[in-house]
Amino acid sequence: MLGVCYYPEHWPEKQWQQDAQEMRELGLKYVRIGEFAWSKIEPKAGKYDFAWLDKAIATLAAEGLQVVMCTPTATPPKWLIDQYPDILPVDINTGVTRGFGSRRHYDFSSPNYFTQAMRISKVLAKRYGNHPSICGWQTDNEIACHDTTHSGSLAAKHAFQLWCQQQYGSINTLNQAWGNIFWSMEYQDFSQIELPILAVTETNPAHQLAYRRFSSDQVVHFHDEMIKIIRQYAPNRFVTHNFIPLVDTQTDNFALAKNLDFVSYDNYPLGRSDMFFKHMPAEQYKPYMRTGHPDFSSYSFDQSRGVSQGNFWVMEQQPGPVNWAHHNPRPEKGMVRLWSWQAFAHGADCVCYFRWRQVPFAQEQMHAGIKRNDNSKAAAWHEVSQMRDELTQVQLPLEQPVQAKVAIVTGAHSQWVTEIERQGDSYNHQRVEFAYYSALRQLGVAVDFISVDHDLSLYQLIVAPCLPVVSAEFVAKCQQATAHLVFGPRSGAKTPELSLVDNLGPGLLQQLIPIKVLSTETIRPDCSEVMTYQTQQFSSQCWREEIELGAGVTTVAQYHDLLPAVARYNNTSYIASLTCDEFLISYFSSLCAEQGINTITLPKDVRLVQRGQYAFVFNYAGKANSIPATLSGEFVLGSATLAPYDVAIIKLP
Amino acid sequence: MLGVCYYPEHWPEKQWQQDAQEMRELGLKYVRIGEFAWSKIEPKAGKYDFAWLDKAIATLAAEGLQVVMCTPTATPPKWLIDQYPDILPVDINTGVTRGFGSRRHYDFSSPNYFTQAMRISKVLAKRYGNHPSICGWQTDNEIACHDTTHSGSLAAKHAFQLWCQQQYGSINTLNQAWGNIFWSMEYQDFSQIELPILAVTETNPAHQLAYRRFSSDQVVHFHDEMIKIIRQYAPNRFVTHNFIPLVDTQTDNFALAKNLDFVSYDNYPLGRSDMFFKHMPAEQYKPYMRTGHPDFSSYSFDQSRGVSQGNFWVMEQQPGPVNWAHHNPRPEKGMVRLWSWQAFAHGADCVCYFRWRQVPFAQEQMHAGIKRNDNSKAAAWHEVSQMRDELTQVQLPLEQPVQAKVAIVTGAHSQWVTEIERQGDSYNHQRVEFAYYSALRQLGVAVDFISVDHDLSLYQLIVAPCLPVVSAEFVAKCQQATAHLVFGPRSGAKTPELSLVDNLGPGLLQQLIPIKVLSTETIRPDCSEVMTYQTQQFSSQCWREEIELGAGVTTVAQYHDLLPAVARYNNTSYIASLTCDEFLISYFSSLCAEQGINTITLPKDVRLVQRGQYAFVFNYAGKANSIPATLSGEFVLGSATLAPYDVAIIKLP
Amino acid sequence: MLGVCYYPEHWPEKQWQQDAQEMRELGLKYVRIGEFAWSKIEPKAGKYDFAWLDKAIATLAAEGLQVVMCTPTATPPKWLIDQYPDILPVDINTGVTRGFGSRRHYDFSSPNYFTQAMRISKVLAKRYGNHPSICGWQTDNEIACHDTTHSGSLAAKHAFQLWCQQQYGSINTLNQAWGNIFWSMEYQDFSQIELPILAVTETNPAHQLAYRRFSSDQVVHFHDEMIKIIRQYAPNRFVTHNFIPLVDTQTDNFALAKNLDFVSYDNYPLGRSDMFFKHMPAEQYKPYMRTGHPDFSSYSFDQSRGVSQGNFWVMEQQPGPVNWAHHNPRPEKGMVRLWSWQAFAHGADCVCYFRWRQVPFAQEQMHAGIKRNDNSKAAAWHEVSQMRDELTQVQLPLEQPVQAKVAIVTGAHSQWVTEIERQGDSYNHQRVEFAYYSALRQLGVAVDFISVDHDLSLYQLIVAPCLPVVSAEFVAKCQQATAHLVFGPRSGAKTPELSLVDNLGPGLLQQLIPIKVLSTETIRPDCSEVMTYQTQQFSSQCWREEIELGAGVTTVAQYHDLLPAVARYNNTSYIASLTCDEFLISYFSSLCAEQGINTITLPKDVRLVQRGQYAFVFNYAGKANSIPATLSGEFVLGSATLAPYDVAIIKLP
Repeated sequence: MLGVCYYPEHWPEKQWQQDAQEMRELGLKYVRIGEFAWSKIEPKAGKYDFAWLDKAIATLAAEGLQVVMCTPTATPPKWLIDQYPDILPVDINTGVTRGFGSRRHYDFSSPNYFTQAMRISKVLAKRYGNHPSICGWQTDNEIACHDTTHSGSLAAKHAFQLWCQQQYGSINTLNQAWGNIFWSMEYQDFSQIELPILAVTETNPAHQLAYRRFSSDQVVHFHDEMIKIIRQYAPNRFVTHNFIPLVDTQTDNFALAKNLDFVSYDNYPLGRSDMFFKHMPAEQYKPYMRTGHPDFSSYSFDQSRGVSQGNFWVMEQQPGPVNWAHHNPRPEKGMVRLWSWQAFAHGADCVCYFRWRQVPFAQEQMHAGIKRNDNSKAAAWHEVSQMRDELTQVQLPLEQPVQAKVAIVTGAHSQWVTEIERQGDSYNHQRVEFAYYSALRQLGVAVDFISVDHDLSLYQLIVAPCLPVVSAEFVAKCQQATAHLVFGPRSGAKTPELSLVDNLGPGLLQQLIPIKVLSTETIRPDCSEVMTYQTQQFSSQCWREEIELGAGVTTVAQYHDLLPAVARYNNTSYIASLTCDEFLISYFSSLCAEQGINTITLPKDVRLVQRGQYAFVFNYAGKANSIPATLSGEFVLGSATLAPYDVAIIKLP
Repeated sequence: MLGVCYYPEHWPEKQWQQDAQEMRELGLKYVRIGEFAWSKIEPKAGKYDFAWLDKAIATLAAEGLQVVMCTPTATPPKWLIDQYPDILPVDINTGVTRGFGSRRHYDFSSPNYFTQAMRISKVLAKRYGNHPSICGWQTDNEIACHDTTHSGSLAAKHAFQLWCQQQYGSINTLNQAWGNIFWSMEYQDFSQIELPILAVTETNPAHQLAYRRFSSDQVVHFHDEMIKIIRQYAPNRFVTHNFIPLVDTQTDNFALAKNLDFVSYDNYPLGRSDMFFKHMPAEQYKPYMRTGHPDFSSYSFDQSRGVSQGNFWVMEQQPGPVNWAHHNPRPEKGMVRLWSWQAFAHGADCVCYFRWRQVPFAQEQMHAGIKRNDNSKAAAWHEVSQMRDELTQVQLPLEQPVQAKVAIVTGAHSQWVTEIERQGDSYNHQRVEFAYYSALRQLGVAVDFISVDHDLSLYQLIVAPCLPVVSAEFVAKCQQATAHLVFGPRSGAKTPELSLVDNLGPGLLQQLIPIKVLSTETIRPDCSEVMTYQTQQFSSQCWREEIELGAGVTTVAQYHDLLPAVARYNNTSYIASLTCDEFLISYFSSLCAEQGINTITLPKDVRLVQRGQYAFVFNYAGKANSIPATLSGEFVLGSATLAPYDVAIIKLP
Repeated sequence: MLGVCYYPEHWPEKQWQQDAQEMRELGLKYVRIGEFAWSKIEPKAGKYDFAWLDKAIATLAAEGLQVVMCTPTATPPKWLIDQYPDILPVDINTGVTRGFGSRRHYDFSSPNYFTQAMRISKVLAKRYGNHPSICGWQTDNEIACHDTTHSGSLAAKHAFQLWCQQQYGSINTLNQAWGNIFWSMEYQDFSQIELPILAVTETNPAHQLAYRRFSSDQVVHFHDEMIKIIRQYAPNRFVTHNFIPLVDTQTDNFALAKNLDFVSYDNYPLGRSDMFFKHMPAEQYKPYMRTGHPDFSSYSFDQSRGVSQGNFWVMEQQPGPVNWAHHNPRPEKGMVRLWSWQAFAHGADCVCYFRWRQVPFAQEQMHAGIKRNDNSKAAAWHEVSQMRDELTQVQLPLEQPVQAKVAIVTGAHSQWVTEIERQGDSYNHQRVEFAYYSALRQLGVAVDFISVDHDLSLYQLIVAPCLPVVSAEFVAKCQQATAHLVFGPRSGAKTPELSLVDNLGPGLLQQLIPIKVLSTETIRPDCSEVMTYQTQQFSSQCWREEIELGAGVTTVAQYHDLLPAVARYNNTSYIASLTCDEFLISYFSSLCAEQGINTITLPKDVRLVQRGQYAFVFNYAGKANSIPATLSGEFVLGSATLAPYDVAIIKLP
């Protein structure tokens, strides 16, 4: 299914009908509306104007379009801010209030905003909950975007004190848990607790972690309450939320998604690539500047599917240049189609494009749409149109993605711990995880992102690039697993309160592989060292642990000084260093072979994924590539020779 | 004419007479005084001390020197700040008040400061307005320096609200004009309007533009009122202001200059080059580190002449190393003379050196003077002395600069629009304009900087490196012009309220060249691509527009993918990309030939400009260079072989 | 002697006895305790708990260990902050209060904190002053760490106003001294004086210097008062303080040390190297990333000995990776021993390791100890154990270091002047001083760091890398000296109030060498130029002065333009530029030969120093090196071939 994001309030009413008709003709089925329209719906406190919205919905409905309605809580109007100035959040890096004038100017801990946000949600849900053309709801918009999960307000401080009281019961328990004896940081009462910001030097990591958990809980609570309201008044409609990249929510995404019907994702491969790969040298970056890295979109798709615990939507798909990255190239011709097919291949049920028409005014006027602001058809129109036609070539609805045999264990907690305690500036949680993911994808294997709570029995290879905190339950599950388990450096090294484990790293994982981390060092990124694996030289970078091997543990790879860098014990491997991608590919390839997981040698920049009966092949290269002959079946789309930026779909025998 | 900046209040009275005598002997005619002397003139509120100033003026006058008197409003004294603390401006990036202790610590929107600044101006103008030795006045000092045009104060907010009311009349008009419906940014009342600062994320570009226009208006209003006071009490004296580089005033410079008799400019080629070219690799930068780029001073001179609508002064000329850049080299021997002659050649009527004697104390003690602080003669003395002698070689006063056949269209509005909406980090308005200017200067052609209100009929080639907003009046004038018109990327793309034009870029310019900008992308600076022009390869960089050509439009240059990069229709060209300097030189050369504008092939680092009957040739190179034989005439100064950093003046036949 | 830093409050009481026993077995004699234990000692205002501390001391004493007790004033508890919120300091760069949650959250100008800090010091001193197992006291902890010398609080402003009044007597004297006439910065009353922070642009350098002197005086006053209290109640105990690198205290270290018995130093060669050399290219940095630069630790040791006016302690010696640098490598095997011996060789009386056991919680959990947090023995254990054994090979106590024949003149005033007035971004006081020091050390000569008040007659070569302010007394002493005197650029150029000297640089030093600094320029670091000395080419970098030579002055080295770069007159040399290390080595080598100072040609990365009858040789290289045959004597430790990271001790004949 295809859809689009639409803002009737930006356009004259007389335009709406033609828009709706063209949407239908373009094969779009879903139209998302309303997420920033609070001031139009309620121009003054308690004075509602629904006439325009009723009409807009009716106009769309008349063309058979289904509407996804949003709560408009990402943009409280000025009159509301003036009424309750404590809605505004406070910058945790400067202590300065973040003012009105853009979006997301609200504090998750403001009791006034909580009340008001739920009020407007209820008003909307009551009015439109049973509307026959409204198929589902989106909560708020891109929660946490612009670093809004954390606030340094008084409201946040008071809420944090309360949260601490609920978590720890007594102040001595908290002091003990955080290790406040260190540097005389002991509190005598919960009301003394500060936010871990603006201190003279680094605050207690346990304090920081608690603040992150608290902030995440605030977001989830706000969001869950909104879901509850929608469900109460809009029965039998789906509720979803459009996530930004999971690393950026600073929220426990599994918890945030829990009460949703499914997760939606806003996919902007070029803008995000510009920022994520900004330190990459031009010769490496330039080939992907108009495509994104071949594994970058699918990384988010697979994560979204994981958090969604099933299929997902792309709620916003970049249709052309955007306006918000450091540099904003246009997609290569064909890429909007490629990303769309890639989303479906990795488990999307629907791809909606953002936005129908480029808006001529305000902050996003340089953001492309399917149509240009003069109503002409932009480049994306033709690719969406091609999608409409090609979707008829496959049997819909698509079956579920094939059950992956490989899983990556992920979670906000791991991210927070390693962001709070980088230990070396060059340790970046997201880059570490992405490197592991990309290595697996280059081998052509499907990857699931799972939490520690997931069923491990489904997998033959389970990889935890970074899992500093492990529980006894998780270890017990690992012991039952038939998979080979791979743990990256730092795994098992920390308690849930961000202390060192008693028995040295990898802590409880010593039950899986009897090794001890004797010391840990971090290294300048430009001072990497040789690592040897099966007579080949790779590199050890940035993070390096010294490990002691227990009886029966074998050395898989060695540092330059011949100490063990990768160790293995039965079906568990421990990688004690950050390594180059080439090592990961090589080692995973060997483990897959051992575990009976099929890998495939793909041309550079070609990626393969299977969904149901179909194999999808994507060519991210600017030159033609041949699909390996081992991939046999009927070409539903394309042929064995992939043009640049082209897609092939093969119906498997 | 030559002059100097002098601070009698910094030196014992007994020194003054010798100073004045030496000034006269050095051939100086003008002495600027008083611009920071408020606390000396009015040590306590309402208690004036003019005795010292009277005597200083008399001492200078006794040697036949003419005094340029300043209003001392750039440095309100501490007692005044303590009396009216709201004088202090507020940093728009941090919200923190910018305190006393340096200079320019005042808010253009403070009603108290307005009153006080006009009061002291009136006091001075009344006392010295008819003094026979005071030939003219300088208002304030380097208005806007240190980013003081914009303030985040309450006073600024209230003044901005009033300004909005006056501009838009009704709040709905404002909402409409800014597109506030986007993100529910609608206001219900002018009193709700915030400054576009310290928000959660990017504020509305229209809001930002309004704030810049408002801030500029505040500066102009303050300045105009001061001019009015001076004119009232100081009849028949010129009034000028010493401008910093025009890009840095963040003010409509044409408006700021309008009521002045002429513009003055403070010329610091080395300090400014150190900052402007700081990202330039050493091998490119080092040859110019003690000279400045060959087009850098003249860029400011030509701009000053443009804003002045005629000749200008250099009020402060760097005489040696300064103290405020990241690195502060000394000028190569001869450069002070070269810059001085270059100023005259580009339309200066007077060059004043900053400062007479290096001051031993406070912020600028490392700033060179004509004399050292021990009263010995610094390097500049000998070059000024040479200027004094050489000025007798030419007929004074110099005639006007030759009427240029080439104009560059410039204006604060274009700068603001492209600073507010960079779209790519690598788009820099000033660098774009400088590149166009430098290309033209390397062809040896004279260049005028004009506003869109200028008479276009004077020119054969009119270049708008960046003109996002165009009016119907301007287009009509273009249609009448006999010049070839060249527009750089972004031209015509925006409405005056910083929205997209309805009919795609270049908007109204489509009446001159029927093309449409279909999409715009920005690119990392290290990812440039090939552009082909007349079988030669150049480069397309940073900014690239996709254009559709209407009937009759020809492709002048092509992108790597063969799409049009430069288009032409009759006498209008549109350059859709940021290109390398080499392309601009090549294309402008061809257009000049076509338009009958003489160009000349000059050795690298040699520049030529004509004023009246004289051709001036400047050698910025560290080696000797030959003047092209085609330049015939009588050598008033120098010869056909230019020594390093030397000047030649040729009286044309 | 060896010692250790221990935190009984971090561990269960039942652990203490074993810890104490192991300390004794490891050869440790001293145990430092208590410096962050305020909240444990006084959990509520006026409620003391000494039981645990009594027991901890008793447990240590029972094993024959001597305790160094600390005042816990670096970490005021939360209840105290809540009682007196004005204890918190204010960030001078942002104006924001620096909150509770880490350490050093106090303002040296807070009268409340002064009272409270002295109170708790007195309480402790009274209780433990005569304890037989407490041999000495440490004041506070790492005073000034985390940029806490300067505060922008109201308390600081008021104290500064008072300080100014005491310094200058009348406001006119202050105005005159600072040159406040410049930019109308004159004050009418001391109560008007602002801190030199958060102004529109650069504040008056004289104002800044006064503020630095004031801030230093505040620290010294606070510290001296604490010493006085300790001495009153703890007779016959030593009092010391653990200094951070002297450049970072922003305090007059000679004054701060004056009333101590000796100085202690906290030595973290790897963390500090990571930060100090962060701009060094990898190929230069990598060889030292696990050792530190060969001259880096000794630079601090020699400075500490200088400030101590005799021997010193290392109170905290890095035993493994730390947690606070940008990257935190482990020391190469052997380096903990090497650094320890190096400390002794340069004048340490005791080396204490930080810390006994890695703490599992809070901010420093990733900081290594002698033992790991699981109580196993970390790498350092074995090296300390080796130290214990090897110390028996030499005769204890070690004699004094040999009297150096070479001195470097240093002082906070020079640092402040050149930090306030960098003039070029690439001038860095510490790097300049380190370069001079390192050049001398590579020649194998011993170096003393002395203040201008020191006896100069002890030296044959006296080097002032940067001494902008000189007094007549100092010059008179220089005139008496038999040493050759070398002055780096900027020397003698400033008055004590940071103005230019009347007679041009080097000011009073013209009595030693009749030259004049005509102009000064600063240059981009990547634009260095050739400098010629004895037909060899070296480089002139970053800072370059033009000098005029008086009669009899000879040119030692020349710039690329043949102007003098280094000048000499009798026994005084003036280096007018920042040069490369190679020039310094070459020139110092020649001067040493002339002055009869023995130099020695050492292999790269090998260093030599003598203490009493012993010569110590250190190999910082990753390969074996031979000790020069000229070094004859009995090998007490090691042999003529030094293994990587090894030490040799030779008993001289």
